This record gives sequence, C-alpha cells and structure tokens, in this order.
Amino acid sequence: MSTAPVLIAGQWREASAAGTFQAENPATGEPLPSVYPVSGWDDCDAALAAAHEAAIALCSIPPERIARMLHRFAERIEARQREIIDVAVAETALPRSPRLAEVELPRTTGQLRQAAAAAVEGSWTLPTIDTKLNIRSYFAPLGPVAVFGPNNFPLAFNSASGGDLAAALAAGNPVIAKANSSHPGTTRLLAEEAHAAALETGLPRGTVQLIYRTGHADGERLVADVRLGASAYTGSRSAGLKLKAAADAAGKPIYLELSSVNPVIILPGALEERGDKIAEEFAASCLMGAGQFCTNPGLVMLIKSAASDRFLDAVKQRFAAAAPAPLLSRGVLETLQRNLKTIAAAGARVLVGGARLDGPGYRFANTLLCVEGRTFVEHAEALQTEAFGNASLVVLLDDVHEAAEAIERLEGNLTGCIYSGGISPSPQPAPARGEGVSGDDALYAELAPRLRRRVGRLLNDKMPTGVAVSPAMNHGGPYPATGHPGFTAVGIPAALRRFAALECFDNVRADRLPHSLRDKSPGNGMWRQIDGRWTQGDAGA
Amino acid sequence: MSTAPVLIAGQWREASAAGTFQAENPATGEPLPSVYPVSGWDDCDAALAAAHEAAIALCSIPPERIARMLHRFAERIEARQREIIDVAVAETALPRSPRLAEVELPRTTGQLRQAAAAAVEGSWTLPTIDTKLNIRSYFAPLGPVAVFGPNNFPLAFNSASGGDLAAALAAGNPVIAKANSSHPGTTRLLAEEAHAAALETGLPRGTVQLIYRTGHADGERLVADVRLGASAYTGSRSAGLKLKAAADAAGKPIYLELSSVNPVIILPGALEERGDKIAEEFAASCLMGAGQFCTNPGLVMLIKSAASDRFLDAVKQRFAAAAPAPLLSRGVLETLQRNLKTIAAAGARVLVGGARLDGPGYRFANTLLCVEGRTFVEHAEALQTEAFGNASLVVLLDDVHEAAEAIERLEGNLTGCIYSGGISPSPQPAPARGEGVSGDDALYAELAPRLRRRVGRLLNDKMPTGVAVSPAMNHGGPYPATGHPGFTAVGIPAALRRFAALECFDNVRADRLPHSLRDKSPGNGMWRQIDGRWTQGDAGA
Repeated sequence: MSTAPVLIAGQWREASAAGTFQAENPATGEPLPSVYPVSGWDDCDAALAAAHEAAIALCSIPPERIARMLHRFAERIEARQREIIDVAVAETALPRSPRLAEVELPRTTGQLRQAAAAAVEGSWTLPTIDTKLNIRSYFAPLGPVAVFGPNNFPLAFNSASGGDLAAALAAGNPVIAKANSSHPGTTRLLAEEAHAAALETGLPRGTVQLIYRTGHADGERLVADVRLGASAYTGSRSAGLKLKAAADAAGKPIYLELSSVNPVIILPGALEERGDKIAEEFAASCLMGAGQFCTNPGLVMLIKSAASDRFLDAVKQRFAAAAPAPLLSRGVLETLQRNLKTIAAAGARVLVGGARLDGPGYRFANTLLCVEGRTFVEHAEALQTEAFGNASLVVLLDDVHEAAEAIERLEGNLTGCIYSGGISPSPQPAPARGEGVSGDDALYAELAPRLRRRVGRLLNDKMPTGVAVSPAMNHGGPYPATGHPGFTAVGIPAALRRFAALECFDNVRADRLPHSLRDKSPGNGMWRQIDGRWTQGDAGA
Repeated sequence: MSTAPVLIAGQWREASAAGTFQAENPATGEPLPSVYPVSGWDDCDAALAAAHEAAIALCSIPPERIARMLHRFAERIEARQREIIDVAVAETALPRSPRLAEVELPRTTGQLRQAAAAAVEGSWTLPTIDTKLNIRSYFAPLGPVAVFGPNNFPLAFNSASGGDLAAALAAGNPVIAKANSSHPGTTRLLAEEAHAAALETGLPRGTVQLIYRTGHADGERLVADVRLGASAYTGSRSAGLKLKAAADAAGKPIYLELSSVNPVIILPGALEERGDKIAEEFAASCLMGAGQFCTNPGLVMLIKSAASDRFLDAVKQRFAAAAPAPLLSRGVLETLQRNLKTIAAAGARVLVGGARLDGPGYRFANTLLCVEGRTFVEHAEALQTEAFGNASLVVLLDDVHEAAEAIERLEGNLTGCIYSGGISPSPQPAPARGEGVSGDDALYAELAPRLRRRVGRLLNDKMPTGVAVSPAMNHGGPYPATGHPGFTAVGIPAALRRFAALECFDNVRADRLPHSLRDKSPGNGMWRQIDGRWTQGDAGA
C-alpha cells in the first residue's frame, strides 16, 4: 500500500516522512485502507519556502484573480461532491444527508464565494485616507498562513477548504493546510480541487499546500517560522496552547479557537412559559452531530423551581430516547469519558447516560449531569472541563445571587445564551419594554452584563449551535475560548482581517500607491474612509 | 523626606512599598529631591481590584461623560502647564521651548480631545448590523488597561496622559498608569489632573490610578492578572519581551512598541538631485531630541557613488557641528555606549563621534558609523542593534542587488523611507508616472516591495520622525517593532480598537441592545455598517 502524496510547491509528491498513519471509520472502529505520511521538518521547510515565494508573487496579482480561484474552487467542489462526501462519511461517520450534502457542503462553497466577493469589493481592508496630510493606510496581506483544521467539520472548517483558508486566501495570502488526522482523505480531495483551481486561474504554485500531520515539535517550529505570516488553529485546548506558546515566543500571530462550554441560562419565566419547547430546543442543539460543535451548549444554568424540575425531566426523557450518533474518533470518545470523570469527581451527578455504548464504533450514551450551584462556584475550573460530545452539565442555582456568583466564575466562552419570559410560543411580535415577565426582566438586567463580558456572542431565546456566516457574526471570544477577543473566525469580511497587517503610506507618490489608496476610487463599490467619512467615491470629490 | 503617594482606588495614599527611588536631572547627573516608592504586589493588587470595579461601572456610563473627562483633563493640563513643564524639564532635560511647551504639550491635549471626539462619535466601534438575521456586533471595552510609558515623551506618551491612556479611556476602560522611572514627578502631576478631571465628571474612582515602579516579577504578574483587560508598553525590547511572555502565557493582549532602527534608503538620483538638502533633513531628524525617538532614522542605506561620498561628508560636518543635547538618563547613555560597541564589533567603523562627552550630565557625541553592505548582510542581527540616541549607521551598498539582500535581512520596523529623484527642491507638482529620474524609478520598483513587508509605515522623500495623529497613521509594524502587525499606537480612532473586544448580539431583544446597535441611529454622526453599507442613518431606512 503506497503512502498518499503531500502537496508542496505545486507538486503532489512523496513526503519526507517520519512515519505513517491511517484514519478510522468511527462507525465501525475499523482502520480505513489509505496510508498517510507524518511529515518531517523537511516537508514543512519546503512548504514554507514555497509559501514565501507565493506570498510575494500574490502581492502583484489583482484580487479579481484570487476571487476567480475561489469561485472555481467552489465549482470544483460541487462537481466532485459525491466523491468528497463519500470519503467524509467514511472518515467521520457524519450523516450524508442532510448534514454533509445539504448543510456543510453548501456552507463551504458559500463561504468561498462570500470570500471571493469580499476580496473583489475590498472594503475589508478599511482603506483610510487623510488627504490633508497625504497619509493613507489599509490592511494588506500578512504572509503565508498555516491552517490547522478541527475534526468536527470535515468540509466547512477543513484546513484545505474551510473558513480559515477562504479568509486567508481572500486576504491575499497563501495557505499551508495541515489536515486533521481524522479525515486526511477528505482533506486530500479538497486540496486537489483547491490546487487545480489555483493552477487554472494562474495563481502561484505554492498558493495552497497540504501536509497531513507532523510531530509536535515540527508543528511548533512551523508556527514560529520567520517565513510564516500567521497561523489559525481550531481544536483542543492543550494542543492549541502549545502552538500558541511557540508562536507567541516568535512574535507570530496565531488565531485560536479552543474549548468553550457555551453557558445557557434559562430564567424562571421562560421555563414557566415554554419549558417544554426549550427542552426540545436544548436537546436538539446538544445532541445534534453527537454534540461535537464548538458552540455546543455544554453548561445549563437554572434557578431551582417546580418548572426547572419539569424541564429537567423533559430533557432527561429526550436524552434517553434519542439514538446517539457515532463520535468522530476513538480519541473523542476517550477524552469525553475522561472529562466526564473529571466533572463527576468535582461533584456532579449523572442524571442520564454516562457510559460508552456497546457495539461497533465509538458511541456514548447521551449524557446529562447536574450539580448544585454552590459546588459549581467552589469547583468552577473542573466543572467547566469541556466534555466535547453529546453531554451537558446542568447547574442548579438557589437564586439570582448564586447565579451571579456562578457566572462570575465562568471562563471565556464563544457564546452565552439567556432565555427569558415574554415570548409566546406562537409567532408574535417581540414584547416592547416592560411587557415581558417582569421577574425575568430584572434577572436579565442583573445577569446579562456579567455574562456579556465572558462571551463573544450573546444570544437571547436561541441555542448557540447555528453560526451564521454573517458580517455581524462573532465566532470568537475571551481567552481561553480564543487567543484574542478582538477577532472572529466566522463572518466575512471581519475574518479576513486576522490575516492582514496594517500598512501605512506617508507622502508616497501617487503612482506608487496601491490602487485602493489612490484618490480615484478603484470601483467595485469599495467603501473607503476619506477624511473621516465613509464613501464609495473618490478622494477630494 | 517623605515618599510620594500612589493613586489607588481614588486615594492618594502611602504606597505599600518595597523600596524607593529618585529621578535624576540628566543635564547635571544630580538626583532630584523627591522620593518615589517602588510598589509591592499589594499596591498592584489593590489597583487591579479598583480598576475591575471601575470597568464594570464605566460600562453603564455614556461615552459623552468619558469625553467630558478627557476635555476637562486637557483643560486642566493647560491650566497647570507651567508647573508640569518645569518638572518635565528637570526630569528629562528636554528643551522647554519649543519641544515641551509648543510641541509636546499641545500634542498631548490634542490627542485627549481627538479621543474625546472619537468616543462621542462612536464609529471606531465598527457597529455592524445584519437586519435579516438580527445579528449585530461592535467593539466594546475590554477591561482595565495597564499602561507602561516610555522615557522619551514625558507628556505625549506619558502613561498618565499620553496616547495609550487617551485611547484606553476613550474606548471605555480604566487605566492603571505605571510611571516611567525617569520622570515620576511629571507623571504624578499629570495623574493628579487626570484624577481630578475624572472626579469632576463623575467617573468611577478607579478610572485613573498611578503607581511609579514595581519589581520585575510584580510587573509580569500585573500584565497577566485575570482582572486586567490588556496592557500597553512602550520601551526597551528586553523589558517589553519579558512582559509579553507573561501576558501571552495568561492569554492577555499586550500591545508593544519596541525598538526600531527605521531604515532610510536614499537612491542615487535623489543624492544627485538634492543630496545636500537630504543631508540637512537627515541630520536634523537624527539629532533632534538627541535622537531619542522611536522613529529615529538609525540606519541609512546608500548605493556607493560620488554623490554618496559627498552626502556622507555633508552629514559628517553637520554631526560634528551640532551641539549634542543631553540624553534622558544615565541608563540611556550606558545602553547607547554598549550598543554602539556591539555595532562596531560587528564591523562598523566610526565616521564621527563615538564617545561620551565630558562635563555635567549625560551627553554623547553625535555619532555616525558606516559599514559595507556585505558585512551588513553577514552580521545583520548585531548591526541592527538599536542605538537609541544621537547615532546612526550608514550601510554602503555596491549595487541594487546588495541593497535588496540587505533589505531582506531587516527585522520588523516601525518605519522605512525611500528617497528618490524626480523632485525639484523648489515646490512643484510631484512628477507623473515615468517622469522621474528613470534609474531611481527602477530601483524603487525593485526595493520598495521588499521594504514594504518589513515596516509599518512606508515614507517617500521624508524623514520618519514626525508621527502625525491622523486617522490614517500607523505607528506600529511587524515584530519585533511591535507584538502584532495589525494595530497602531498612534492615530485616532484606530488606536482605540486595541483596547476593545468584539461583542456580538444574536437575536437579542431590541430594548436590550446597546444604543449603537439598535435600528435607530444613536446620532452623533456615527457611521455604522448596515447590511454591507456604511451609513449614518437608521437600519431599515
């Protein structure tokens, strides 16, 4: 059995390998036939050299050409979707339909097309012109971007096709994709199409490169290399923080999307008003895809009441009744088991589930735990261990004071939700000020400001698992959910600015300026801030 | 002699001190009479606790009130300017006039007023509204900001009155100012006025706090504290990188402005055309304030010719003729001596100057060194040691290829300049494309893209020492000039965004949204991006 080739400097070639690995089918636990290389430093070094050359070449290629590449890439993914999804199903056990075919693949191609539009339009660069002093600045490409993709979105967050790659390319940077080891075959197919699209549209040969896996030391060396512009990592906290330490020490930006328990606070009025409906929403959000989402609602806060008892019963029934989907890998299963043990050891008790399921593949019973508010406050760190998978912890609070105290102990999270009363289950206009259940309004006013500071996205009356690709989205948040609270991994154009450097031109002669900073608007509807005013027009007009 | 009080939690009170220190008058080398405390951790801890409370309180205070504080602060500085400047002169030996009175003090109050205007107007928060999905986001205050000010701008970059403080406050955050140990008395006066302005306008008591100095370990603990939002540091690379390591390990943003040699490339056509004028500009820029500017032109690149010989002669004459101003401290003098030794040991020779001057105070002869291009390429790291002070290194290059090679060896810098031919010394319109000295145009095209990637601000035909407070300014650049290439320390409103977190509101009920994210425009001329369009109007209008 030959080992799969890596894509370096435009060549699909044999890796300079330090070992090999195979992926498994998580539905059966059986290894899949293809063999992939663990690249040694030589591969990383060659990829960095090619990316460096590509980054320089890309600087003189107009954004329209990069946009064409992104469009062609999206079309090529669509043309090959059956094969891509076949491999993704085998490697992840995620449902073909609707998940992969109707949700994730269209999201992937949609992101590529949105990124293409942003590249052409160019407003993401925040062009700023001071005509009086003749000082001009904008965000410009940062250099090669290394992307480390997660296990849970084999297409939409794949290092060779996902949001980070789309943002990095649209911002004008080449990408070195490091496959997630649980779906190397999917990543290979996507990288084939990305590279073909780059060649078709005349982009440099090192625009998209692929390695499957490296040793830890080589990964740390990669993110710290002087030729790299930045890295983007989505995955476990422990591995992410090691890469962060290496990148930080070298002064290289690294954008991380790490663990998050995504607290959901359900206020008493909401439980009284529509507890059963919320139980249904919660169970669906928590169990969908076996709960393997970065925004999975892993922590629920309830103030004790008869309604909270009824809510818990309803959730328990749903957890017990739903058939658990397979987990993404043996590693996910083992980490879930280990982290649930940590949570139980800190004082939580299992209400339903709590054990691995028999039979082939990696499945775990849908699991609900609960803990008293006092215990949560006292063991907040252990009880916030992320149990990545189909599990959630309910915190039972005595009153709003304990709720406030518990919220103050929360780490940084991607999302936080508050459900409150005052919404009729049937569609009706949202209540005007003061019309809601008055108790919930007071509780909201007390708790929301505390939660706000601890999360990137605050939701009302809605579970956090949908992450819309909207210009207003923030898929980010305070450390340790990410490494910097000012950046988002989802949402175009904001996600592009992670991969950009602020470049200023002071007294630079007019014909030497980038087109988007000249007096005359480059067109494409680009918004520029000229002397303090946003305009699509010319400077001095 | 009693020790000066620190300002913590609204009280000027005795420090919990681990020691004391005195500043010196750099013009005489004599210690100044006042005694200042070296704060222990108790002071840092108390300041953090008060800042945390203040940060929460500031969240519900309208930006208009913060703006009023900034305006009042500016007025109070002006009212007390004679006393402030007297102390600054004694502590820094910088000239009273024009430097401190006519340049730096108006810059300081101007920055405070610009920051106030940005706070009220609010566009700096980039409010982004997706009306279809009802997702809204903006940049919101990050939490308390610790500011470590540099030695070289006792007013405009003072931790208690400078650009970082103005930006942090305008963004809605309290500030813990750590004085620069070389001008504690100036900092104390400024902090008195800042605090009085905060009290006058009803801001929380912990809005501005002051400690003068801490041990290294406490400084590192401070920037890593969970109660802190971020830090801003301007100063030496070695101290800055230690703070960076501590902040990074805790996941706390830290914005650094470190060393920079600010390469200036003077192309042959420019030397032919106006070599003497450029020599005058260069000497003025390099020697002003004894060269103690972060954007001091510390590295000049010339391609060897008869004109470059004439240029060097002209510079040498000017360096020999100008009377050196005092350096800011004994430490600056000793570091300058040490770093010039490093540069000489790497192969540079002294053309003029090179020694400490006799007499009272800390003065060093204006110093010009030069080195062959080949040597520079081979010992690029040592030869880029920043010689902070009235010194500069000239690199003599054989040709454009060697120039390109030398540029490729440059570290990240705040600025980079290229002088080229085609500008008449008398005011005339800039030449249109192709009209310049053709040789320089070709050289520019070869060298500018390489320099561009290594600097934050690229200048043409202009020395880098003026850093205008313009919305288009970038006083930042690639590592190790700063810690992240996407942020600027000067330029309002961009500098405010360093101290902000991206906050997203997903399906949040209308009356719970921040005013700037509601459908109705909050007024003040705020620009918001609504469904992809920048507008000062309402959503849905």
